[in-house]
Amino acid sequence: MKLVIKMVIVKIPPNRFEERQEKFLEIIQKLNLENFIVLSPTSIYYLTGFVMIPTERPFMLVFKGSTLNFFVPELEKQHVSEEVPEANVVSYFEYPDVTHPMIHFGNFIKDLKISDKLGAEAGGARGMWGYQGPKFEEALKMSIAIHPDIITDIRIIKDTDEIACLKECARWGNLAHKLLQKYTAVGENEIDVSFRASHEASKEMRETLGPEYSPVGWGVRPCGAGYRGQIGPYSAIPHAMTRNAIFAKGDTLVTGASGNVAGYKSELERTMFMGEPNEKQRGYFAIMLKAQKAAFDTFGPDVPLSSVDKATRAVFKEAGVMNLVQHHTGHAIGLEGHERPFLDIGMNDLMKPGMVFTVEPGIYDRSIGGFRHSDTVVITDDGMENITDDYPRDLESLIIEE
Amino acid sequence: MKLVIKMVIVKIPPNRFEERQEKFLEIIQKLNLENFIVLSPTSIYYLTGFVMIPTERPFMLVFKGSTLNFFVPELEKQHVSEEVPEANVVSYFEYPDVTHPMIHFGNFIKDLKISDKLGAEAGGARGMWGYQGPKFEEALKMSIAIHPDIITDIRIIKDTDEIACLKECARWGNLAHKLLQKYTAVGENEIDVSFRASHEASKEMRETLGPEYSPVGWGVRPCGAGYRGQIGPYSAIPHAMTRNAIFAKGDTLVTGASGNVAGYKSELERTMFMGEPNEKQRGYFAIMLKAQKAAFDTFGPDVPLSSVDKATRAVFKEAGVMNLVQHHTGHAIGLEGHERPFLDIGMNDLMKPGMVFTVEPGIYDRSIGGFRHSDTVVITDDGMENITDDYPRDLESLIIEE
Repeated sequence: MKLVIKMVIVKIPPNRFEERQEKFLEIIQKLNLENFIVLSPTSIYYLTGFVMIPTERPFMLVFKGSTLNFFVPELEKQHVSEEVPEANVVSYFEYPDVTHPMIHFGNFIKDLKISDKLGAEAGGARGMWGYQGPKFEEALKMSIAIHPDIITDIRIIKDTDEIACLKECARWGNLAHKLLQKYTAVGENEIDVSFRASHEASKEMRETLGPEYSPVGWGVRPCGAGYRGQIGPYSAIPHAMTRNAIFAKGDTLVTGASGNVAGYKSELERTMFMGEPNEKQRGYFAIMLKAQKAAFDTFGPDVPLSSVDKATRAVFKEAGVMNLVQHHTGHAIGLEGHERPFLDIGMNDLMKPGMVFTVEPGIYDRSIGGFRHSDTVVITDDGMENITDDYPRDLESLIIEE
Repeated sequence: MKLVIKMVIVKIPPNRFEERQEKFLEIIQKLNLENFIVLSPTSIYYLTGFVMIPTERPFMLVFKGSTLNFFVPELEKQHVSEEVPEANVVSYFEYPDVTHPMIHFGNFIKDLKISDKLGAEAGGARGMWGYQGPKFEEALKMSIAIHPDIITDIRIIKDTDEIACLKECARWGNLAHKLLQKYTAVGENEIDVSFRASHEASKEMRETLGPEYSPVGWGVRPCGAGYRGQIGPYSAIPHAMTRNAIFAKGDTLVTGASGNVAGYKSELERTMFMGEPNEKQRGYFAIMLKAQKAAFDTFGPDVPLSSVDKATRAVFKEAGVMNLVQHHTGHAIGLEGHERPFLDIGMNDLMKPGMVFTVEPGIYDRSIGGFRHSDTVVITDDGMENITDDYPRDLESLIIEE
């Protein structure tokens, strides 16, 4: 008998970062660039595995050929040096300081002997939290080719490790959602129920995945589920915010649940009801479910992205509720909550294996609520796999009994 | 006997938004502008009270004179119309769609009869999550004066309601921190302890503040406290990330706690020890405490901001640990976790009543840990008030007994 041990992924293996760098270098070489300034924290994590808290302090990863050169504030020097040991790490003390970091950055670029063929994700340091400073061209007295999308575009096709991470996410988002449904009851508070479900599921997740696991990012939790104010008629506001609401009989609810594995996130959303839904609620629910089914039936390699949105619109039009639609069918997902490309009538790009999308056609009636499930699907060689399919989507399973 | 009811603030009163808009309009008029595009979600909340989930979908608030005109995706139309009833709200369906939202935006600006004297916070829609689109000047065929800092600069001086919110935050950050300290023990896990303390304190907070209260923002909680991986020698990495760590005897710990009242946040951090600290830990702690005391003694109206950083550096130099310093003394705080201006030797602006700062001089020894308290202080007419002063900062109070 052969013992099969199924390995659970909790981190992206180091060889993947090398692969990604190679892909990136190939692209910049085709653009006739030899050097490149990477700025987005997501891009930096994707290429090197280094996770940071973005602040007002300029933070740049500079590729000179295939070498990694970090220009960082002093408080990140040790951190980067330990996490990316192969990199050259140079620090400036602080922002704003008596000498602006961009002056030091000029010297850093000079010391690297970079004098041309320089590209960048943006024209200047990623400004936030009160940062002010000159653009790179001004600071470096050099012309710079701005290419904001190279890494964002590489990220569109997920490799097998990324998909494994997303599946692991989905598994724990599922648990958090189960607990959310379990603890939701008339008279309970949305913040409390969400905290309770997320805490319990996160504990189970981290105990199961072991000490090697940690959620990746700033202010993140292993997994969680909640309502974000989408309770009762407020569920008809797709981007409602937490309102410290109390659940009441008759409420339509829209949920959200996810996990975090190596920084990747899946998306699971369900429409639920506080007690028996009325005819109107049942009617809207059935239309939404039919639209989502139509979307699922559309996916596959080389299918235009717009087809999915066309399929859900056809269902909504036939049901006479196109006036209740407020958004397209879905978006790509991975390291960020929304990613390019979109399941939108305006996108005629073709699906490719390794793309990952949310599927979330919705209808919204301010008098009664919102009706939207969201599932996460992976495009495969011969169709698609719904990685959040384990959570029931039929109406009877989604009634919170009194 | 007179009954005094102390009102607790949970929201910014509507007249404050009017005041802020008036200040903003005065400034743009001085710049000879009559129209202005506001883009940052923080700026939009500051001026109108509208809170959103920022996405790839362009979202603009356009001032034409004193009128508020929102250009939003369909899924935010109802939301904005209800939250800012005095505004003119126009929606486009979706991004990317068959017609790019910036084409619709061009028509929106034309319909508003704006043809010149137009300013903006940035050159184009706030790009994130895969957004691509033309700059405003290209889309509108109009020259635009970019002024990124107007609202950021107005926010520097907090009014009495903002300060009341920050004090209320501090009160609940204090409770979350107390529970964090209570539940931290050898063998416990950082994620679990943080969840438990944050959940319990948030429950107490929302029950005390009542149904009118809700935390403001996306993915936020009423209050919370945690370690963010700053446990044992890792506390010497100022921006360490959660590591799913287990507390052990001898660990130096650095914490963080805050509340959220109307979107405002205070900052409370403490250096703590797992059991009796050794001589080295005591030594570093004493130096850090002395530096923080030197900072406190410096604050007051019309004092240069650089004085605070000079005072803490003097203490560190005298103690011979300047090599262990990795950042300046602090930063302004309010709606964002860090704000301009900074307590930095490079900043010679003067303190003014209503400014709010974190005070957090730190020293870091990778072999043993980080030593940093952070308190939040408000500059007053005759000095300063430390609004997180209730939490003890002496060493004996910060030892976790075995």
